[in-house]
Amino acid sequence: MINERLPKIWYGGDYNPEQWEKEDWDEDVRMFKLAGIDVATLNVFSWAMIQPDEETYDFSFLDEQIDRLYQNGIYTCLATSTGAHPAWMAKKYPDVLRVDYEGRKRKFGGRHNSCPNSPTYRKYAEKLANKLAERYKDHPAVLIWHVSNEYGGYCYCDNCANGFRNWLQQKYGTIEKVNKAWNTRFWGHTFYDWDEIVPPNALSEEWNGDSTNFQGISLDYRIFQSDSLLDCFKLERDALKKHNPAIPVTTNLMGTYKELDYFKWGKEMDVVSWDNYPSYNTPESFTAMSHDLMRGLKSGQPFMLMEQTPSQQNWQPYNSLKRPGVMRLWSYQAVARGADTVMFFQLRRSVGACEKYHGAVIEHVGHENTRVFRETAALGKELAQLSDSLLDSRVQAKVAIVFDWENRWAIELSSGPSKALDYVNEIHKYYAALYDEKIAVDMIGVDEDLSKYDIVIAPVLYMVKTGYAEKIKQFIQNGGTFLTTFFSGIVNEHDIVTVGGYPGELRDLLGIWVEEIDALPPEEKNQIVVKQQTGNLSGNYECRLLFDIIHSEGAEVLAEYGSDFYAGTPVITRNTYGKGKAYYVGTCPEHDFLTDLVKTICAEKEVAPLLNVPKGVEVTERVKDGTSYLFILNHNEDEVEIDNCKGTDLLSGNQLAGSTALAGYGVMIIKQ
Amino acid sequence: MINERLPKIWYGGDYNPEQWEKEDWDEDVRMFKLAGIDVATLNVFSWAMIQPDEETYDFSFLDEQIDRLYQNGIYTCLATSTGAHPAWMAKKYPDVLRVDYEGRKRKFGGRHNSCPNSPTYRKYAEKLANKLAERYKDHPAVLIWHVSNEYGGYCYCDNCANGFRNWLQQKYGTIEKVNKAWNTRFWGHTFYDWDEIVPPNALSEEWNGDSTNFQGISLDYRIFQSDSLLDCFKLERDALKKHNPAIPVTTNLMGTYKELDYFKWGKEMDVVSWDNYPSYNTPESFTAMSHDLMRGLKSGQPFMLMEQTPSQQNWQPYNSLKRPGVMRLWSYQAVARGADTVMFFQLRRSVGACEKYHGAVIEHVGHENTRVFRETAALGKELAQLSDSLLDSRVQAKVAIVFDWENRWAIELSSGPSKALDYVNEIHKYYAALYDEKIAVDMIGVDEDLSKYDIVIAPVLYMVKTGYAEKIKQFIQNGGTFLTTFFSGIVNEHDIVTVGGYPGELRDLLGIWVEEIDALPPEEKNQIVVKQQTGNLSGNYECRLLFDIIHSEGAEVLAEYGSDFYAGTPVITRNTYGKGKAYYVGTCPEHDFLTDLVKTICAEKEVAPLLNVPKGVEVTERVKDGTSYLFILNHNEDEVEIDNCKGTDLLSGNQLAGSTALAGYGVMIIKQ
Amino acid sequence: MINERLPKIWYGGDYNPEQWEKEDWDEDVRMFKLAGIDVATLNVFSWAMIQPDEETYDFSFLDEQIDRLYQNGIYTCLATSTGAHPAWMAKKYPDVLRVDYEGRKRKFGGRHNSCPNSPTYRKYAEKLANKLAERYKDHPAVLIWHVSNEYGGYCYCDNCANGFRNWLQQKYGTIEKVNKAWNTRFWGHTFYDWDEIVPPNALSEEWNGDSTNFQGISLDYRIFQSDSLLDCFKLERDALKKHNPAIPVTTNLMGTYKELDYFKWGKEMDVVSWDNYPSYNTPESFTAMSHDLMRGLKSGQPFMLMEQTPSQQNWQPYNSLKRPGVMRLWSYQAVARGADTVMFFQLRRSVGACEKYHGAVIEHVGHENTRVFRETAALGKELAQLSDSLLDSRVQAKVAIVFDWENRWAIELSSGPSKALDYVNEIHKYYAALYDEKIAVDMIGVDEDLSKYDIVIAPVLYMVKTGYAEKIKQFIQNGGTFLTTFFSGIVNEHDIVTVGGYPGELRDLLGIWVEEIDALPPEEKNQIVVKQQTGNLSGNYECRLLFDIIHSEGAEVLAEYGSDFYAGTPVITRNTYGKGKAYYVGTCPEHDFLTDLVKTICAEKEVAPLLNVPKGVEVTERVKDGTSYLFILNHNEDEVEIDNCKGTDLLSGNQLAGSTALAGYGVMIIKQ
Repeated sequence: MINERLPKIWYGGDYNPEQWEKEDWDEDVRMFKLAGIDVATLNVFSWAMIQPDEETYDFSFLDEQIDRLYQNGIYTCLATSTGAHPAWMAKKYPDVLRVDYEGRKRKFGGRHNSCPNSPTYRKYAEKLANKLAERYKDHPAVLIWHVSNEYGGYCYCDNCANGFRNWLQQKYGTIEKVNKAWNTRFWGHTFYDWDEIVPPNALSEEWNGDSTNFQGISLDYRIFQSDSLLDCFKLERDALKKHNPAIPVTTNLMGTYKELDYFKWGKEMDVVSWDNYPSYNTPESFTAMSHDLMRGLKSGQPFMLMEQTPSQQNWQPYNSLKRPGVMRLWSYQAVARGADTVMFFQLRRSVGACEKYHGAVIEHVGHENTRVFRETAALGKELAQLSDSLLDSRVQAKVAIVFDWENRWAIELSSGPSKALDYVNEIHKYYAALYDEKIAVDMIGVDEDLSKYDIVIAPVLYMVKTGYAEKIKQFIQNGGTFLTTFFSGIVNEHDIVTVGGYPGELRDLLGIWVEEIDALPPEEKNQIVVKQQTGNLSGNYECRLLFDIIHSEGAEVLAEYGSDFYAGTPVITRNTYGKGKAYYVGTCPEHDFLTDLVKTICAEKEVAPLLNVPKGVEVTERVKDGTSYLFILNHNEDEVEIDNCKGTDLLSGNQLAGSTALAGYGVMIIKQ
Repeated sequence: MINERLPKIWYGGDYNPEQWEKEDWDEDVRMFKLAGIDVATLNVFSWAMIQPDEETYDFSFLDEQIDRLYQNGIYTCLATSTGAHPAWMAKKYPDVLRVDYEGRKRKFGGRHNSCPNSPTYRKYAEKLANKLAERYKDHPAVLIWHVSNEYGGYCYCDNCANGFRNWLQQKYGTIEKVNKAWNTRFWGHTFYDWDEIVPPNALSEEWNGDSTNFQGISLDYRIFQSDSLLDCFKLERDALKKHNPAIPVTTNLMGTYKELDYFKWGKEMDVVSWDNYPSYNTPESFTAMSHDLMRGLKSGQPFMLMEQTPSQQNWQPYNSLKRPGVMRLWSYQAVARGADTVMFFQLRRSVGACEKYHGAVIEHVGHENTRVFRETAALGKELAQLSDSLLDSRVQAKVAIVFDWENRWAIELSSGPSKALDYVNEIHKYYAALYDEKIAVDMIGVDEDLSKYDIVIAPVLYMVKTGYAEKIKQFIQNGGTFLTTFFSGIVNEHDIVTVGGYPGELRDLLGIWVEEIDALPPEEKNQIVVKQQTGNLSGNYECRLLFDIIHSEGAEVLAEYGSDFYAGTPVITRNTYGKGKAYYVGTCPEHDFLTDLVKTICAEKEVAPLLNVPKGVEVTERVKDGTSYLFILNHNEDEVEIDNCKGTDLLSGNQLAGSTALAGYGVMIIKQ
Repeated sequence: MINERLPKIWYGGDYNPEQWEKEDWDEDVRMFKLAGIDVATLNVFSWAMIQPDEETYDFSFLDEQIDRLYQNGIYTCLATSTGAHPAWMAKKYPDVLRVDYEGRKRKFGGRHNSCPNSPTYRKYAEKLANKLAERYKDHPAVLIWHVSNEYGGYCYCDNCANGFRNWLQQKYGTIEKVNKAWNTRFWGHTFYDWDEIVPPNALSEEWNGDSTNFQGISLDYRIFQSDSLLDCFKLERDALKKHNPAIPVTTNLMGTYKELDYFKWGKEMDVVSWDNYPSYNTPESFTAMSHDLMRGLKSGQPFMLMEQTPSQQNWQPYNSLKRPGVMRLWSYQAVARGADTVMFFQLRRSVGACEKYHGAVIEHVGHENTRVFRETAALGKELAQLSDSLLDSRVQAKVAIVFDWENRWAIELSSGPSKALDYVNEIHKYYAALYDEKIAVDMIGVDEDLSKYDIVIAPVLYMVKTGYAEKIKQFIQNGGTFLTTFFSGIVNEHDIVTVGGYPGELRDLLGIWVEEIDALPPEEKNQIVVKQQTGNLSGNYECRLLFDIIHSEGAEVLAEYGSDFYAGTPVITRNTYGKGKAYYVGTCPEHDFLTDLVKTICAEKEVAPLLNVPKGVEVTERVKDGTSYLFILNHNEDEVEIDNCKGTDLLSGNQLAGSTALAGYGVMIIKQ
């Protein structure tokens, strides 16, 4: 349980009373109670208020808010306010301002703009965390610390340049090893002195944000910046923990956000929390994958849904309303995949600045007679009724998909073979096939233990880090099924090619050699021709973008190309290795192929769907002390019929046995 | 009359003899006479010639030109030359160079590039205006002063930053009021000192030119920059007027140009002038609207068409020729909507630099045997024959459309609900419906008296400035018909939301409450289902982009949505308020709906079309001393038949009674 | 012969042993021998290795490589390494770093980034060339010097600004002449002092890379930068030649690369070499044109194919493999058009940095059992068998197409009439029509002697340099056929319009006056209506984009427009002038028209196709000492039948007489 002081699914969100007048605060509390809200995130952007100048700290406003809410039964998720530095600080100490990718020193503005290697920022952020912890460490309202906000963004200033050089010295020891790791003999870029190294950006090695002359330095700079921001988090966390180690510490993450290696971050947080903002056209399976990824950061431990909008966003191109029922549906989707909180940005809408058209529990109209409020209050009531039944329950998956940020960065930085290759999309294709089959999946990092899984899928495992090939081999030898794809096994952790034949260290376990990789524009298609029916695989499928030209070195050839000069050569292979099997998919197949492929693999390993349901219905399971909670989520606008329901629906209280109707956007949580 | 020295429609344009040799000047005059040209705009870009260094001024060239032209019957529109500072000034005093949106200090180049808050620029621009006025204040050739040229462009330098802080102090008095107006408690942006405020650009609060974190500062900066440039204009104007207040002063504007609040500018000018450059695909109704807008800047006073091309432009992607007759047609379109001059850029084409492929009366070939010259000369002859008959006549409109630059900026800076919302396009949709119905329209600012109108249309009146709601209420109570749309009444003049329910201050006069605003991608359509026929409204129409979810609070529901979860809820309403009516259009309808709507509203108020004519024919009326001049402009390539013509066609001299043929691109001015 | 030490078609490519370990070098040599490789380009990017600091030079590595290769029968193409400065130099002497188009001082990174006017770069580049020449001038392995690498890119730093001012003083003498040449009276840009002139870039006169306010300064800056880079080349060349004038000097060019005036460059090189990298969708005719252009730089002298990929590139959006046979086919295409070498980038693939996915003779797998290696080795064998038979043979063309970089820059910088006008595309349209007809073409600069041609085609000869009109007149008067198009004869070499009627100096030889130029968006079409059949021209054809409105002044009108207000006016004309004829094409016609047009013109001049072959088959001829070598290249995937083959196929050894089959992607070299 995140904090035993509030033993239920927390319900609340970001609250900024500093934007309002005293007379509004009582009305807020009245409506929070109506809505069943029991937690408010305070102090997210109050640094300038709390510390109006270098010497002064004033917590009176915060004292008053925390107390007032607590007296009304509302707990506090207490933020440290360091997501935006005060204007006076930017004016007095310009080192807090970043230098951007174009090499321009920024001025005061925006948020999440502090240089992570600024001595001033680090000093005052740590000091503020200390002051907050000192003051509130024993306050009974405080459930959790919320450090900063949505960390992200890189800096290229001189402090970062120096920090990078020190970081490189720590990592490599000598300049010769840096030259080797980055292959600087290419284009005569050999460094003889640390000071010759400059951050890679639009003024030096990079362009367009993800193109580089030297993958090595660009990859290391991303790791360095992710680490620098993580250092900022750790600085505050340690300050907070020093005063009371019992209060958990989190910071709100952002799903598949590119710039930070969240698997490293998860290790440093007591509990993962994240902000879920699907676009109007985001597939449900992508949201599901994001939840699973966030759960995976701490190996399955329940996480917090820290932010979602009650209805509308403001920063999408077209900010559609959440249709009636959808906010509830998506809230339960989070819970279904491991969330133990349902929280919103924001409890009351601001009246000025760029988020004033972002939805809120209390809208600009200011009263409770709105659709959004009614839906919020209804959900609050339901969550109260669920009490602590679901808390700490776990999703149990026998299938894992490997996700690795450094691999992702290396793929995006690669010059060739195809600009159309998108790592997250490729991951999602495999995830979506499993999602459609109602197979539970864990999204795992490369440090995760594989032995608990039957099937491990690692799409585009381009970068194979030291020891990882060995780990996969052991997994397969012990009977596991492994699947990987084109553009895998190519480089080591410095993005240096493993010579001797692709897919490098994975070559023998896959039993193939990839001689060439063809890349064609998206409109060019080839075919996957299944040689003889294997499980659900049969006939022909389309494929595109990348086409490995493969020689089997012992692997069974399941399918061949249907056209082009490599027609009749292998495209899908399966290798028996120890007690297990290793699949290889040498191209980008259409969705139907992937569906049939995962069916086949799962059937081989006897990994069964959770339930057979109509199209558009999501099914997941959380288990606690041997009790199963089956979540059935209808993403269709229309009612569907669910067969084979057995147990009690926690939401309706109905006893189910056999077939039951589920309304459009409806949800059941069946206790079995 | 602009200046009684030349009591006819002025005919001429920009003339740059400094680009040519003495031997060309006589030839120019010969051809000007052939073309009926009687006014030349001189000295637009001659600063570097007149003032070759800091100490020297030399007007001998200008003396010679003005005199020579005058001796040949050609008057001068005398520019002050401050639209482009000299290279020596940029070299010696870099403060005249702007800092751009990206934060980069510019170097010498281009035009309209002077920092409006540069002490050097202001000093020398004022000095030059003084010198010019001193010298030419009594010259009989000088009809009008043309200050600078096409003012525009913002600067973000330190002088502007300081200027902005002073401007804010003037406007707000205290830093606390600034914080309140900009809602800086959001994201903890509270300022404690004026010096902490920096201009909002790509280095601070903004990106992409029209996106911002803080609408408040971005809006104020636009007002400040528009005011700064206006201050430059006023500085020169006052210098000029000091010497001879009888000579009118103008500067050439640019229609719907975004960066300047032209309603403020109009107040400071003796006569409005503007440059009309439709693209190859600009609708005629858009040009018409632009003329009406320029006329509206001084509440209907006739304006100058300062520039148009005789045929071709150069800076469009595809610079099509004006088809035979079109230059004449578009010249009369200007006159038809209030212009008392027809002037060109340019009288002779330059041979080098970026405008050498811009059309001119005298083309590169250098003689009069060209189509363009022949058409120019024919028009010159016609305008001479019109003499002073049309001068000072007025367009009389009973319908007004409200246009407000600050509202426009606020809408464009808004984050949400839809990036597809374009203020000027929305205005034009309503304008085009009235244009198609041959209903005269005034484009008015928010300071305009409403009592002279029967119908006032204010599309997307997002920002309701102090007192404006009251003004509308009085208008309606007195029997007026008011119409507004979705995304209206939302904020005050600081872009701070009016809480308590949309559309804010307009809520009671409209008799509705807008609970939610749905925004969908452009391809998603809904339907406007008319409940029972009302005037011309009946059946179903398409709508898109934005969809207000409306509760009637007394308004009559004319139409409802046809689909989505708000099917059956109001989309078009009409509220009786006092003696008048207030219409609300809760979505972006198709053109047919708007046509039927304006027909309905106009019929209710007995505002009739000027004349019923075939499609593609434009009709306007100017009235002078009780005499009506009806302009009939055929924008079709082919001949059309016009019914019910009565009176004398001033151009052909024909007496009309009944039906008459009007040639493709033909024009009639019927005196009744 | 390039160098008599290796009297055959050289076969080899870029080799970077410094990226590998000693143990790999022997394996490299073994495989080079297997592949028939006899030349390796060394030292392209080794500056940082050779000169690790300001004082030290160490050639031991290079000594060892050259010797080792030579002992194994492999010669060296010796690069000077100045294509990328060392990191220590950038750190110590920042003047070597460029200022980019946006005005930003760059930091260390990339290659080809040295400021061409940097005193440091020039000093150390020259010094290095001297040292290399001193050391290797008598080494028997060294066949040729390869100066720097793929020169390109402009700089806008203060050293360049000063250099530009000096260059202008050299060119113009006085500031008054600069003002005149650039028409600075326009917009009052008059310069009174050299120091007022700043480089034209995004901070001054330009935007978007090819848009400018002043074509004059922008054109001169391009010439200046091209000259500056050429000065760098000449500095090294002179240093090299000083030590041993017998070793030829080249630098590798890039076909139609925009930034350098290669006709000037060709004059300074002993032999032209270039890098041929077609995209996956480049037409074969475009590659052919590029070869012909490179051959034209030295008036037909054979050139070097310095780089091509054995199979894959890495920097295209989609890097497709060269299909089996295509590398051989495209190698012979180069030879067929004048190449006396076939060389690759690269002999061994690097393992790190941005070109690791660029194809190589030795792939990452490291052995010879790959398709790419087998094809490479097969070609090596063939080339060895050809011995010296083709060396120094010449292509003989009676048709020339004029290509001029300064004209190209001026067209691209032009503001109006149409942004869709692309000089190289227009050139290619005419080239492609001749290519399809199997007519040999020389691509020539404006300095080339025209008397050797029967037909000279100069599409979009916008800029007519001093004396060039006279040269064309003499060519026609002597019986030649000349063809030019719309937007020709407009300006002089300073981009100043030739007044008095388009097409300026070409007006009398063409017998026409172009009164107006209409420009329409690409989707708008007109028709070319042939008046009466002329050769292959008959009926109607489509045309678009630009439409000259033409008056014949003696020219025969071959075709008229079919629609718009200029329907029935001339569009295609032919003027008899002296003994010759001058054609004018007043619009952008479709391909079929151009095919029929070139057939007609060639037939008139009795210029016959080399051979009639099926579609997709390329035919060229090289001649040596009266012997003809006819190249027949099948770009089709499928086999074709070639008729009328007579002679010996040098590749198969077959005696041909009559019809023969040519495999898909097959090649014949028929000795006649």
